[in-house]
Order: sequence, then C-alpha cells, then structure tokens
Amino acid sequence: REDVCKLTSPLTFPWMWECKKGACVRTPVSEATNGMTLGGCKLTCGKGFTLWPKPTGAITLGKTPLSFTYSQVIVIVDAPQDVRGLVEKAGNRLKETLRDMRPPGGSCLKLSSARDANLATRQLTIRVTVERSDASLTLKTDESYKLNITHTDADQLEAHIEAKTFFGARHGMETLSQLVAYDDANDALMTVTADVRDAPVYPVRALTLDTSRNFISVAGLRRTIGAMAMNKLNTLHWHITDTHSFPIEITGEPRLAQYGAYSPREVYTRAEVEELVQFALERGVRLLPELDMPAHVGYGWQWGEKAGMGNLTVCLGKEPWQEFCVEPPCGQMNIINENLYKVLKTILVEYRDVFKPDLFHIGGDEINLNCWKTTPEIAAFVKEKGGDPTDDEEYMKLWIQFQERVYDMWTSIAGEQKTILWTSHLTQRPAEESRLDPSKYIIQIWTTGKDQQIGDLLKQGYELILSNYDAWYLDCGGSAWVGKGNNWCSPYKSWQTVYDNSPREIAHSFQSSSDTVASRRPSQPLRQSDFSTQILGGSAALWTEQADDANLDTKLWPRGAALAERLWAEPETDSLAAQWRLVHHRRRMVARGVQAETMQPKYCHQYDGSCYIN
Amino acid sequence: REDVCKLTSPLTFPWMWECKKGACVRTPVSEATNGMTLGGCKLTCGKGFTLWPKPTGAITLGKTPLSFTYSQVIVIVDAPQDVRGLVEKAGNRLKETLRDMRPPGGSCLKLSSARDANLATRQLTIRVTVERSDASLTLKTDESYKLNITHTDADQLEAHIEAKTFFGARHGMETLSQLVAYDDANDALMTVTADVRDAPVYPVRALTLDTSRNFISVAGLRRTIGAMAMNKLNTLHWHITDTHSFPIEITGEPRLAQYGAYSPREVYTRAEVEELVQFALERGVRLLPELDMPAHVGYGWQWGEKAGMGNLTVCLGKEPWQEFCVEPPCGQMNIINENLYKVLKTILVEYRDVFKPDLFHIGGDEINLNCWKTTPEIAAFVKEKGGDPTDDEEYMKLWIQFQERVYDMWTSIAGEQKTILWTSHLTQRPAEESRLDPSKYIIQIWTTGKDQQIGDLLKQGYELILSNYDAWYLDCGGSAWVGKGNNWCSPYKSWQTVYDNSPREIAHSFQSSSDTVASRRPSQPLRQSDFSTQILGGSAALWTEQADDANLDTKLWPRGAALAERLWAEPETDSLAAQWRLVHHRRRMVARGVQAETMQPKYCHQYDGSCYIN
Repeated sequence: REDVCKLTSPLTFPWMWECKKGACVRTPVSEATNGMTLGGCKLTCGKGFTLWPKPTGAITLGKTPLSFTYSQVIVIVDAPQDVRGLVEKAGNRLKETLRDMRPPGGSCLKLSSARDANLATRQLTIRVTVERSDASLTLKTDESYKLNITHTDADQLEAHIEAKTFFGARHGMETLSQLVAYDDANDALMTVTADVRDAPVYPVRALTLDTSRNFISVAGLRRTIGAMAMNKLNTLHWHITDTHSFPIEITGEPRLAQYGAYSPREVYTRAEVEELVQFALERGVRLLPELDMPAHVGYGWQWGEKAGMGNLTVCLGKEPWQEFCVEPPCGQMNIINENLYKVLKTILVEYRDVFKPDLFHIGGDEINLNCWKTTPEIAAFVKEKGGDPTDDEEYMKLWIQFQERVYDMWTSIAGEQKTILWTSHLTQRPAEESRLDPSKYIIQIWTTGKDQQIGDLLKQGYELILSNYDAWYLDCGGSAWVGKGNNWCSPYKSWQTVYDNSPREIAHSFQSSSDTVASRRPSQPLRQSDFSTQILGGSAALWTEQADDANLDTKLWPRGAALAERLWAEPETDSLAAQWRLVHHRRRMVARGVQAETMQPKYCHQYDGSCYIN
Repeated sequence: REDVCKLTSPLTFPWMWECKKGACVRTPVSEATNGMTLGGCKLTCGKGFTLWPKPTGAITLGKTPLSFTYSQVIVIVDAPQDVRGLVEKAGNRLKETLRDMRPPGGSCLKLSSARDANLATRQLTIRVTVERSDASLTLKTDESYKLNITHTDADQLEAHIEAKTFFGARHGMETLSQLVAYDDANDALMTVTADVRDAPVYPVRALTLDTSRNFISVAGLRRTIGAMAMNKLNTLHWHITDTHSFPIEITGEPRLAQYGAYSPREVYTRAEVEELVQFALERGVRLLPELDMPAHVGYGWQWGEKAGMGNLTVCLGKEPWQEFCVEPPCGQMNIINENLYKVLKTILVEYRDVFKPDLFHIGGDEINLNCWKTTPEIAAFVKEKGGDPTDDEEYMKLWIQFQERVYDMWTSIAGEQKTILWTSHLTQRPAEESRLDPSKYIIQIWTTGKDQQIGDLLKQGYELILSNYDAWYLDCGGSAWVGKGNNWCSPYKSWQTVYDNSPREIAHSFQSSSDTVASRRPSQPLRQSDFSTQILGGSAALWTEQADDANLDTKLWPRGAALAERLWAEPETDSLAAQWRLVHHRRRMVARGVQAETMQPKYCHQYDGSCYIN
C-alpha cells in the first residue's frame, strides 16, 4: 500500500499551517501559535478559499473548524414528489463524497489527546428544501440556492439548503461539500458555520465534447459529467458524430453505427445513451446533442447506394482532401437526395425521444462548396434547375434551403424551439440573404473573440454561445496531427487564458452607445440594449482528433473549472486573483477521481502566495 | 461492462483491412480480396510496421500471420546462473503480455467456420539464450540481440532470442511481443516468421524525472519504468530532490525526509527504493540518481541550526525570489559549513548502497552567486580569507572548490567513475579556470541544441548527454505556473520535434574538418575526431512543477517513445516517416496500461497514409 504513512513516530510531521493575512503558510509546529492542518486552514482562512466557482451572492463563513464524523451525517429532503427522488439521490451522493474524504488509512498525525470529545454525539443534519417540481433543465431554470450552516447551542451542526428547483439544491449540496475537509487532527471531518447565497450569471455553462474523431467510453463521459457537476457546469454539448465515425446506435437505422463505428465495441447503444441522459440529469447537467450537418458527415452513411437510396453523402474520403474539406477525411451530405431527409428524420425523431432536448445543435460549420460543385450529380441538379453549375452561389442557395428544411423538420418533431448553429459563411451573411432568423437560431461562436461577426450578430439580435477558439478550444497546442510542429490553433490555451475570456467584456467591446436591440425573445419585453444579455453563456470545446480516454481528463481539467467560474460568476477579478483557489480546487478534483492537469508545485499550495511573478 | 461487443449479429462489422502499397486500408468485407483484421494487416504489411523502436540491423519478416493460442506458449531459458532468474522473470512477463492481448470478452467477429484447425496442437516455443553473466548495466553493456521466429514443417512455431547479455535478451523479448497481435478471426494470437538483428546506437537512453517539485508515487515510477522498457529506454535519471521537497528516506539522516517531505505519505522509504532499483533492473533500466547541488536544495535541510550544526542551507524561501534563484522557493547549500559535508557523506554512502550506480549525477545547475554574496555568514567567510566579499568571482571560487570536494567524496565512496554535471556557468568556463576535467565529468546539456557551448565541450573532449530544452523538455507549453499565459519554454515540444532532434546532427553541426579530439577515455585509443562518438546519448526531461501522478503518462508518452527511437536507432529518416508506426505503438502502449497522449483520430490508424499534409 502506497497510501500508508511513511513518517511515523518518532519522526512526526513537523509542520502546521497558520492563516497569515489571508494566506495559509506552513509553519514549524513549535512556532505555530494558532496552528491548523492544511485542510483546516484552507477552510477558515480568507473568505471562501475552498469554494469553486465563487458564489455570486453574499458569503459569511465562520473562522473555527467544527469537527464531525461521517457516521453522524443525516440528510433530510423536503421536496415535491416529482423531484424527491432526484434530490434524495443527490443527498446520497453528497454523503458518499463526505465519506470518501478520509484518506485510505486515515490520519498520519499522532491524534492529539485533546481529540474533540464531543464527536460521538455531534450530528450534522443536512436539510434540503426544494420548492418547485421542475425536473428538467431549460434556459429559464432557476439554479439559485441558499446554504446555511449553523452550530447550535446543543453542539449540533445543522446545514440547510434552500432552492427553487432541484438544480439549485444540487448546486447547494456541491457547495456544502466544498465546505467540508478531512480533519487530520481528529481523524474526522470538519466544516464551518456559513451563510451563502448564490446563483449563476449565464444559463448555458457548457463543455463541447467530440466523440467522432476518437471514441470516448461511457465511463469517460460519466466521469466528465461528474466533474462538470463539481464545477456547476450544466451542459454537455455532445458533438456525437462527424465525418470520421458515427458511434451512436440509431435503432430506427442501425446501419449508421454499423458502418460508422470504428469497431464493434466503439458504439453508444440506445440504452447506454438513455442511462447517460438520466445520469446527467441527476447531476444537474443537460445532454445537448449535436447532429453536425451538412458538412462533417461521412462514415456511417456509406450504405445508401447499395440499399437503393443513392449516395447519402458525397466527397467521402475524396483526395486531395485539402480541396474538399478542412481536415481528412472529407464528406458532406448529398443534400439533393430526398432519401437523405428520410434518414435525417429517423435520427431526429430518435434524438428527441432519447435526449428530450430543450436545445438542439444542428452544426452548420465548415461547408465546402467545392465539394458539391465537383460532384457531377449535384452539378447536374443545379443545371437542371436552370442554374449555373460553376457558380458557388448556386450551392450556397442549396445550403440555405437545406438549413431551412432541417430547421422545419426539427421543430415539427420537437416543437417550437431555437436550434443552435455554428458560425459559418452563412452566419456571416446579411440576414435577408441567409434567411437565418434570430428567433430560430442561437449562434455558437467559434471564431476569435475579436471577430466583428460577433458584433454583427449581436446587432441583429441573436443570442450567442461563445466558444471563441483563441481562448476556449481545449485541443490547441499539442503536437500537429498532420505534418510537423504544433497543431493549428497553438499555443495551448492556459487556464489563465480560459479564465480571463469574459463574454461580458467581449459583448461590450462590440457595443457602441447608439446600439439598440429589438429583443426577439417573445417572453421578454423590448429592452434597452445591453449586448451581454444576449450572451446565453459559453462552451469550451474539446475536439478529439487528439483526445480519447487516455487524456480526456488532463485536457478538460482544470481548464473546464476556470471556464466554470467565468460562466457562473463573471468575476470582475482576473485569473491571478483566482489562482490559489483553483489550485486547491484542482487538488480536490484529483482526490475525487479526476485526473486534472497539474498546475503548480505542491509547495505553492502549502505556502499561499509564494508562487508569483512581478 | 463497456468492453462488450455492441455490434452483434445480424449487425456484423462490415470492414476488413487490405495491405495496399505498404499501407493498411479499411475495405468493405465484400470487396476485400485478401482481407485481414487490422492487427493482422499491421503485422504483415510493410516491413516491421509494429516494431518500435526500429531495429538497426537486418530485418526479414514473413507475410502470413500464423495463429497460436496463449496456452500453447512455452519459454525456455538458457542462461548463466547469475542472470537466469532475471531472464526467467522477463520470460514470465512476456507471457503475461501475450495473455493480456486478448481483449476482455474476446473477439466481436463471428468466428469463421474456417477457424484454424491446428491451433490446439501448435506450440510457440520461445528459447532465450544468454551468453554472459553481466547482471548490471554499464556504459559498455552489450544490449544487442538476435530474434528468429520460424514455422517448422511440423507446423510448430519456434522463436529464438540470442544475446550476449540479459539486457539484450530482454530487448529481444520486447521485440517478440511487438511481433504478436490479437487474432480476432480465431480469438487467438498471431505472429509472423522473422529474422531480426538489433543493437542500440547510444548507451544512454534516458528519461529525467523530477520528484521534488511534485511527488510521484511509487506506482507512477513503476509504470514509467515499465513503459520505458516497452521502448528499450535504459536509464531513469531520477532528479530525486530539489529545493521544494526532499522525498527520499535517508536512514542515516532521517531528518532530511522528515523536514523535506510534503506530507507523511509523500516519502520514498529505503525499502521502496531498493525494490524500485530491482524492479528497474529486471526491466533493463538503470536508476541513475541525482543529488542536485549546491543549488536546488532547501526544504529537508532546515533542522541544522537547531541541531547545533549551523545553517546547512541559505537563502531558504528568501524573497523577492527573483533576486536569489530562478524559481520559487530559493535555497542553496551553505558550502562553507563543514557540517554540510558530513550530511552529504551520509547521503552519498546511502545512495551508493541503495542504487549501486555506475553513473551518478551531482547536478550543478543554476547556482545564484547573489544568494551567497548576500548571506552575511558567507560574505564574512570570504572576507576572513582575504577576499573581496562584493566580488562575484570569490563565490565562483567557492563553488569550484565545492565541486572538486564533492567529486572526490563520491569517488572515494563509490570508486573511480565519471559523474554527471548539468551545463552551467562553470561548464561554460575554460577548463583551466573551472578545473573541470573531461576524465571526471560527463556534461548533460540543457541549453538549446544550437548553443556554442556544445561545440566547446566536444572540442575539450567531454562526453555529453543531450537534454537540449528546445526539443527534449517535456514540461514546456502548458499554462504558466507563475503569472499568466504559457510557461517559460513554450511552445509544447511535439513528438515530431522530439523525434527530429538528432544528437549526431547536433554534434556534426559543431564539427569543423580540422577538429581533432584527444580522447580522454582511458579505455579507448586516441581516435580520429568524430564528435558524435562523444555523445553518450540523451534524456528527455520532465520537470514536475506541473506534473504529478495525474498527468505523468500524458506528459511522458508517446514523446518518450519518439525519443527512444531517436536514441536507439539514430534513423536517417525523420518523424513523418515514423508516424504510422508511432501511432500504432502508442495504441499498444495504451492497451498495456500507459495513458499516452492521443496523436490522431483513430481514422488515421485505420487508413494508413490518409492523414498527411503537403
């Protein structure tokens, strides 16, 4: 066993920690006047050192660690019938989290003779009160909560979490777990008195994860969702399919996965996906599916011709790939083939049934007009309709028609709702040409945060989700995967870069004093222009050309945590102010089983503030 | 279970692979004229597709996969008594490796009715012949081997590995394991006939791993050594201690770890280190310990004054750190304190006993003269000796005296042997000033590969180990750990950059036609100058300010594999020529439990040659 204590009597660990000017500093036991264990110091020094993301409301925390034992923890749920089960499950998970804080083997300290004598009788009673019965997450879900921890005159600990919804209550439990630490001195747990009010700034706090370039196991997805929940991220934007592979079972058209899976094991069965949707819901996370089209398709669709349905895709694996797509292999939908739409309908109906999404993403990025133009079948179609088959504009029109048709198909299946589109040549066009409509489309930005297109879209009244690649693409900076050197969007986006990417500042940077926006959200009154209210939130994207289960965690974390605080709190302060807390939070994530990238020498965690640059 | 087959009858996997112009290409089963499973294709297509690092001698491989079952594998050892145990253990590990190639659950293919009928009676007999009884690795160890796999007329498989030493034989077993793949079609294993002759170019093929900035668990070290063995790397240069922490138990001076460990669990006990040395030996890897001094020390030495031994180190945690060291926290040895040398002797004796090293590293990098100069005790010492305490040169002299004294101490303890030093201000000096001597010191280069110092050292006759940071520093390119943006040696060193860093080319780049070198190696005759013969090898360094168990594997691999081929083979070809093989090898490493960073979409592995750039 590696987790045994190596320093044992008479060689005791000679350090304690003292809180000095809001910093925890390692100090010789002999010199410490108010020495604490490291966990105790982090819990009580400063103002919410252990909280991530930073709460947006008022915080009051006690200064004295209060010990308790896991066996004395009780969770009491007061919630409407529809969500009682969800809340109870979250309560059980909270208890497991507390239980697992004890390191294997327990404390390495000589337990002091002054060990807290009241531990045996001190209960921590956690009461969770939920008001409403909302059991699904929407853009309007109230995710706020209040958390109160008190120490009664009878020496009991009482925590009360109050929330409008299950989603808020779950966040409150997450916060509570961050106000508990292992207590080495008593081989127990400890917490502090607290009063926290909290609610997120943005309704969409997302990670975008690609499972087509490389497959990610269901275990990897679960671990990711669990880690998102630790950070109060609420949306896993699942880029399920792409040209490279089609890993999801569509029971209505099983040939898609049969032809599209990398191997017989690399498939998400319908049952697995349904379980994942539930798993995510229980953790306050929506699975937001993307069916990227009409580009970024290919493998999985090859069976059309043999089945008498014609080519469902074109340019599949066409070479030299540089002429027909942005990365190998090429592939685009054969949007003039009516059979294509039959298959699409099968998929969309199944996505509705499985995901029950309140938000759906229909991709729309990186269409290569040259692919269609050089496909005889499509060129002939253009000519037949009286168009000039050498004119790019003809193919643009086909794309626009496709877009409208797919939007109508989805809303006829799933009911009126906005769908999400990536920025593209289409979204750069004037609205009247593209026929895009801010009441139908939310635009996800993947260009840079300085792209004028952002301002143009805001002026047109679009709601946006930011994924600007100069800050929020998590795949940048590794080895190239075609050619030499580093990959296309190098350098690596540091956690500081992720943290300092403020949607509010980006929105404001495009705002002039004369701007007014006619809000198209029917639910809200026409309001004064503030572009930042059109920002629904953001998503950090992990494209998986160079990610799979082996490096999933290190790519996503702790940068996903930096994102989470930006989207939860839109803090006025920058990454340097957040560093100590994130270093602590990252260690907690590792302790909870997430292989988050290492940020600093452990020294920096033991001597707050010593790792700085002027 | 996630590893179950998701595509099952009637939805069979519709692909096989064909070898076309030396590339494995996914092909519909119906169109394949000579279809194979992916593993079978990689094994037989091209010339040694599955071998990493590339053998340096002649290779002949058969074109027909030959199936066998794990239960029919026999290993026969023919070796001198002194190494028989080592060879037998390696044989057992080889068998385990073969056993573990079967995926959990076995094949997802419908096993063909034409399943190889002779599987039950076909044995694979692996005979391992070792000539010499060398049981430790030195710079002169013969690591060559021959591997022969034949298919007898009686339909039996016979593999014969012949080597001068255990170390060569172990490499041969590694190569054999790379010539075996899982056989989906028969739910068995398969190999090919083979004749391989192989030997490394450089005797030092190393990783440098720091366990002071962050602790790496013994499990992490073992996994690393195991992964090194998969790549025929033979040296783990263990940068055990630094200023940040002193994680190794020195039984003769337990206060070092007591005061220096980050926590009571983050200690390597003597027993653990001894086991690690043995573990490494069994895998053909030497543990090369470094005691970095006189800088890069600090925590672990704080008890001197209280123990009546004076300050053993100075400038410990001194601020602002920028004035006294290169990164926080500062710390340097108090080289005028005679008690320091007593402690050093205790450590060095114990290092000799535990590691039995044929090579020892005494650090010597990044000395900050200002630290000593601003330390009253040391300045007073200089003055007392008649020197000018404001003159840097006085402190340089102290450093040189320290260096000589430590060298003498080590050789008096361990016997005459060269020790390794990092490049520093000292190695930049003319030999007569620094009193460094090529017969005493091997220099490890950490400046760039273009640094003129390399040429100067070669001209002086030094043997070098290359760790030039512009290619072989594996910690570069992540988030900054002090301040914002990316860390100091960004960008990330891609596997291509690692691979293309040729010691031979670097040596030749400093060579002019008139150069002659008086070799100082007593064992060798004076020879015509070829600087590349002075290159002992190289080491890719992982400094762990931003690494620990969470990201150890992704930082080290597959870049460590790219390094391994460069050092084993010094291929004339570059990284682009190696790409397909490394992608395959990286997948094999992942299958064997190493979380190597992802290189490409799996698509690229299924369609060799399709992921290119012009």
